[in-house]
Amino acid sequence: METLYMKLSEENIAPNVILSGDPWRVEVLKKYLSNPKKVGFFREFNTYTGSYQGVPVTVTSTGIGAPSAAIAMEELYQAGMKVAVRMGTIMTLDSEMLGDFIIPSACMRGESTSSTYVENSYPAVADFALVNCMNEAVTSFNANYHNGITCSMDGFYSKMHESRLSKALDFDIMATFEKLKSYHALGVDMESSCILTLGNLMGIRSCVLTVATVSENLNEKLQSTERAAAEDLLCRVALQGIYIQEGRNKK
Amino acid sequence: METLYMKLSEENIAPNVILSGDPWRVEVLKKYLSNPKKVGFFREFNTYTGSYQGVPVTVTSTGIGAPSAAIAMEELYQAGMKVAVRMGTIMTLDSEMLGDFIIPSACMRGESTSSTYVENSYPAVADFALVNCMNEAVTSFNANYHNGITCSMDGFYSKMHESRLSKALDFDIMATFEKLKSYHALGVDMESSCILTLGNLMGIRSCVLTVATVSENLNEKLQSTERAAAEDLLCRVALQGIYIQEGRNKK
Amino acid sequence: METLYMKLSEENIAPNVILSGDPWRVEVLKKYLSNPKKVGFFREFNTYTGSYQGVPVTVTSTGIGAPSAAIAMEELYQAGMKVAVRMGTIMTLDSEMLGDFIIPSACMRGESTSSTYVENSYPAVADFALVNCMNEAVTSFNANYHNGITCSMDGFYSKMHESRLSKALDFDIMATFEKLKSYHALGVDMESSCILTLGNLMGIRSCVLTVATVSENLNEKLQSTERAAAEDLLCRVALQGIYIQEGRNKK
Amino acid sequence: METLYMKLSEENIAPNVILSGDPWRVEVLKKYLSNPKKVGFFREFNTYTGSYQGVPVTVTSTGIGAPSAAIAMEELYQAGMKVAVRMGTIMTLDSEMLGDFIIPSACMRGESTSSTYVENSYPAVADFALVNCMNEAVTSFNANYHNGITCSMDGFYSKMHESRLSKALDFDIMATFEKLKSYHALGVDMESSCILTLGNLMGIRSCVLTVATVSENLNEKLQSTERAAAEDLLCRVALQGIYIQEGRNKK
Amino acid sequence: METLYMKLSEENIAPNVILSGDPWRVEVLKKYLSNPKKVGFFREFNTYTGSYQGVPVTVTSTGIGAPSAAIAMEELYQAGMKVAVRMGTIMTLDSEMLGDFIIPSACMRGESTSSTYVENSYPAVADFALVNCMNEAVTSFNANYHNGITCSMDGFYSKMHESRLSKALDFDIMATFEKLKSYHALGVDMESSCILTLGNLMGIRSCVLTVATVSENLNEKLQSTERAAAEDLLCRVALQGIYIQEGRNKK
Amino acid sequence: METLYMKLSEENIAPNVILSGDPWRVEVLKKYLSNPKKVGFFREFNTYTGSYQGVPVTVTSTGIGAPSAAIAMEELYQAGMKVAVRMGTIMTLDSEMLGDFIIPSACMRGESTSSTYVENSYPAVADFALVNCMNEAVTSFNANYHNGITCSMDGFYSKMHESRLSKALDFDIMATFEKLKSYHALGVDMESSCILTLGNLMGIRSCVLTVATVSENLNEKLQSTERAAAEDLLCRVALQGIYIQEGRNKK
Repeated sequence: METLYMKLSEENIAPNVILSGDPWRVEVLKKYLSNPKKVGFFREFNTYTGSYQGVPVTVTSTGIGAPSAAIAMEELYQAGMKVAVRMGTIMTLDSEMLGDFIIPSACMRGESTSSTYVENSYPAVADFALVNCMNEAVTSFNANYHNGITCSMDGFYSKMHESRLSKALDFDIMATFEKLKSYHALGVDMESSCILTLGNLMGIRSCVLTVATVSENLNEKLQSTERAAAEDLLCRVALQGIYIQEGRNKK
Repeated sequence: METLYMKLSEENIAPNVILSGDPWRVEVLKKYLSNPKKVGFFREFNTYTGSYQGVPVTVTSTGIGAPSAAIAMEELYQAGMKVAVRMGTIMTLDSEMLGDFIIPSACMRGESTSSTYVENSYPAVADFALVNCMNEAVTSFNANYHNGITCSMDGFYSKMHESRLSKALDFDIMATFEKLKSYHALGVDMESSCILTLGNLMGIRSCVLTVATVSENLNEKLQSTERAAAEDLLCRVALQGIYIQEGRNKK
Repeated sequence: METLYMKLSEENIAPNVILSGDPWRVEVLKKYLSNPKKVGFFREFNTYTGSYQGVPVTVTSTGIGAPSAAIAMEELYQAGMKVAVRMGTIMTLDSEMLGDFIIPSACMRGESTSSTYVENSYPAVADFALVNCMNEAVTSFNANYHNGITCSMDGFYSKMHESRLSKALDFDIMATFEKLKSYHALGVDMESSCILTLGNLMGIRSCVLTVATVSENLNEKLQSTERAAAEDLLCRVALQGIYIQEGRNKK
Repeated sequence: METLYMKLSEENIAPNVILSGDPWRVEVLKKYLSNPKKVGFFREFNTYTGSYQGVPVTVTSTGIGAPSAAIAMEELYQAGMKVAVRMGTIMTLDSEMLGDFIIPSACMRGESTSSTYVENSYPAVADFALVNCMNEAVTSFNANYHNGITCSMDGFYSKMHESRLSKALDFDIMATFEKLKSYHALGVDMESSCILTLGNLMGIRSCVLTVATVSENLNEKLQSTERAAAEDLLCRVALQGIYIQEGRNKK
Repeated sequence: METLYMKLSEENIAPNVILSGDPWRVEVLKKYLSNPKKVGFFREFNTYTGSYQGVPVTVTSTGIGAPSAAIAMEELYQAGMKVAVRMGTIMTLDSEMLGDFIIPSACMRGESTSSTYVENSYPAVADFALVNCMNEAVTSFNANYHNGITCSMDGFYSKMHESRLSKALDFDIMATFEKLKSYHALGVDMESSCILTLGNLMGIRSCVLTVATVSENLNEKLQSTERAAAEDLLCRVALQGIYIQEGRNKK
Repeated sequence: METLYMKLSEENIAPNVILSGDPWRVEVLKKYLSNPKKVGFFREFNTYTGSYQGVPVTVTSTGIGAPSAAIAMEELYQAGMKVAVRMGTIMTLDSEMLGDFIIPSACMRGESTSSTYVENSYPAVADFALVNCMNEAVTSFNANYHNGITCSMDGFYSKMHESRLSKALDFDIMATFEKLKSYHALGVDMESSCILTLGNLMGIRSCVLTVATVSENLNEKLQSTERAAAEDLLCRVALQGIYIQEGRNKK
């Protein structure tokens, strides 16, 4: 039976899944797949299944935010997902890292969707072996990576970026960043901690591969050409990481 | 200056905005607009600006979940939105209401994004005058509506619908529904309370127009033809409601 | 059987009830009733039943604070109340509103008694139709009203007014007011959000009619003659509002 | 300057104060005073100052619930109160104690007004010396007393007694009592923990003197003659306790 | 059957128990016992049973922190403890009290182990009669004591004393002290509120006897000779207090 | 300057530290060190510094519970610790794992001391490279290990093992275990999540090496000979793991 929103089934998805935040970046991913078959583009969920260097892979999207990311994780799990790699952009707290990859060992659960499953004290930890594969994939493309702790949040304009409303309410966005830096957090996004928490609860392997495209409160960012290149590389690294881990598993 | 995700500005949006949950339903809305101009389809945000019976209207989408709905509200507010009408489908707690419109007076803030702005005790109340316009619009199409309290939540598969994971974790989804019914809640969705809370904080007028397409835990649902008709009607009612309120304001 | 504290029964109360905060203001209300019969004055609950322009009405009091207001609501509901109008004074956050009526669309649940019934995310929203009747009643007496959000709190001297103790504990009362103003709250009292929350849970119609007699932290207030006149008018408006809604219901 | 609600000042109150929950019971207290002078009966606050066996005493009332009890405590403190004795009835968790005095060493802070002053972990402990005086006063009238822990709550009909609404919401009132019994709590009321918490924060001496007139969920209660006698005795014991402590202080 | 960690049983412990924080201070206590028998020194629990002036007494240790103190209380209760006296050092908030005894009437529950048993609103109150015995014992040694409220906390270096990490995280340790002083708290330790909470839940008699050896944030402290003398006296007072209460009980 | 409790300084400790829960197990560790020098045994902190196969190592103890573990971490960090390995026993949730090593990738923060430093959403994640060294060390002794999530708690007898008090309070200890198993937690202890959280905040490398000696609620346990052997092996593995990581670092 097909799943509710994404129309997934064991027949149309692969055990290895890459989840992009942006539905349109799935089209870039798709270009690197052999025999990509469209599963469907419903709501913000754009799904293809194909293979990369002989390894079957499904690529899909979660949209922005943990609630829709949780729906994607649930429906993929329902259809047999065994490995989940979130792939996306991240706001770094250290502008020196702009353009680098951040592959968290674990995330701070600042979003609240995962807490509808399990209390906040449960760790959103990545699968170590999968992280190692992603680290290796980054290196194979001569890029830099950082492992460490990142943070996911629900409120982009209440916590991560000043806005007309946040100014009217006198929010201190920079205080959030200062606190996170004192905790040695490397970056902030909106979905990772939910994906890793659910991955652990599901008993599957999950990790997060992000590229730092903006710095805190968007003070600095990659310019458009650099950004397009970074996002293209992001897609290739994710697929290469999946390929490496598949090789390890076979051994 | 254009907004970050949606590329909005005072030049390309109207003060009256309809926010669909589903980005693809915006295409239906667009059919009823005169001179619709595409603003852009970025991430899950699909935006057009045009007019309905002479009233300028922007139609856009939020994607699923309060975090992306909050981003849409913030960027629209940045660009000058004065009236926000969320338009979407809702899971009703009373299967007698299937196919009817539910136009909440206020929503229970079961999602957590709005609490990154203001404590949970702040009411997610709709603008009464705008609700009256929507009530009238429904009636003008010979359809039924219900006013009352609804609830918005972050966890679709942890709170609103059984899943492979929710069963493994032994969640009692039906208990949530029983509790909500004892509170006289009419339905459950994922974005409304965030949109109304932000509307109040922004000092703009906001309301929610939903059509009940499924009942609790998806036990019953509108069949596809009925559903398509209901969703088409939803779009027309939303536009007609905007038209009615514009007339009132001029008086 | 009579209720525990107030000695109410279906025989001695009317479906339409006005709840004054001050037990002594019930004596003013009573002057405007035909055939008022004393039900009793127990604790802070002073109750009469009579009629106003042919409409049966019970007038009673809640005392200060949500715990006793909840007792009154519960015992009235036990005895058949169908419409509950809280009538009282409010501290306004905008001194321009002194002497005006504030009729909230919904209240921020800053008190905690209502949360012994339902989580704080449930909205303390007024019945729209009843609010419209009160708006009309105010207008019929050539007075001004404001609809919007107000806030109810448990701690008068910890949150709303400086005291010997609050100074010793270094509380920043003004910070509370600043925050509430940034939320567009119109005023602060101690009972409304509990009454509206219980009204919604009971499935009855409820609203709040208040007159602004003091401004934040009591910086300004109506002088005694003005205040007495305002409170007298408050009583008449409440009764007139009940009369108007009764007429509507019959149609 | 007179206080806001109760019109108190250093001129019209004594350092020793008895606070009755019920404003009408103050009239009983007054009968035992020499030269009682009426300070005023505003809202639910009925105040007299006089003397008992030569000791100046103010007797007043708080009404039901912690919010109004806190207002009384604050205004009395503003006017110079040094010793505060709450005097009231209590629902006992052990029907064997019906008619006995319960003089808590400390109270569980189940009400929320005191938490607007200080976090819940702060103990609502009575002044030991004052408790000893009250114990002695009870004994001097050949009555029984129990020292131990009691609990104060905000929701009478949500926590302490079944109601039409609590049944509709499927509340398990008896579960509350079972839990409290397992904690060795002797009884439940609505004001004590707030009064003791504020007494400690103010740095004054405070205690609570209650008589058990009903058992849990009102399953048993003192009949009216017994109850009147118990309440009359309650007034005399409170005054006698004040007298004893005044003697101790002089030594 | 012997208990898990401490190897206690009804055969090897006395109903009167003194619990030292420091396991090595038990060796001092032991010197004042007649016929002390070693029960065992496991983990941080060092236990002897003997008698003091004919009264059987067990002396043991809890180690630092509420989690191990709770284990000690539980195993002692399992083995028949009826009276528990915590004996330790405390950080005073008033340097005038250095060297004096602080015998709290109740403690603020700033630690979290006790809240795994009962909500924070439950008071950590001492047994009044036992406190009176300790007061008397202090006086019999010509020392000074203070009764009042103290506070127990889990985080020594996050809440009570600046550290390399607390500075890096920009914690304001002094703010904690200022707040506690405004609450009239006399001192801060790490175990007392857990021991008193469990004592009340167990229905046994418990109290705390501490000597102030350091002031807030360790700004001042007893020098080593004074400190050794103070700690020696602490042991003798604890034993004498037990002896006094045993005499009272017999009467 | 020496630290407060443990008398540590940069002169008397090594950058590599093993923290045993049990102070007496440090004596076993010490046997495997070359030139162990006693730093001191104060409270529950028993410290030696020596070397293992040429690598300088400090071995010490934390006692039971997170509050004293945090003190040890803070004082060691003050004195220059760079690598922290907690070494202890754990209660497994799968009796098949009795006698095996459990080396968590991350821990659920069920204790509360770490939350006095940083909100609960921050992950208590181990250093991946250090975990790999410990995995390898276990294998080198022909023993089994499991990586995964474990949980640390404050209440041994309120959460992890039935007691006289927990039965009186009607606690459902087994429900805790069932919930943890559904989360795929491998075991439960009392200190690990605090040590890992502080390790991350300090920016040092930390991990946890435990051996499963008992199963849930102590239903099964290693017998004394097996247990002694397991604990002896635990000491040797910890030292070997430190040795391996030192080698890696040099490369």
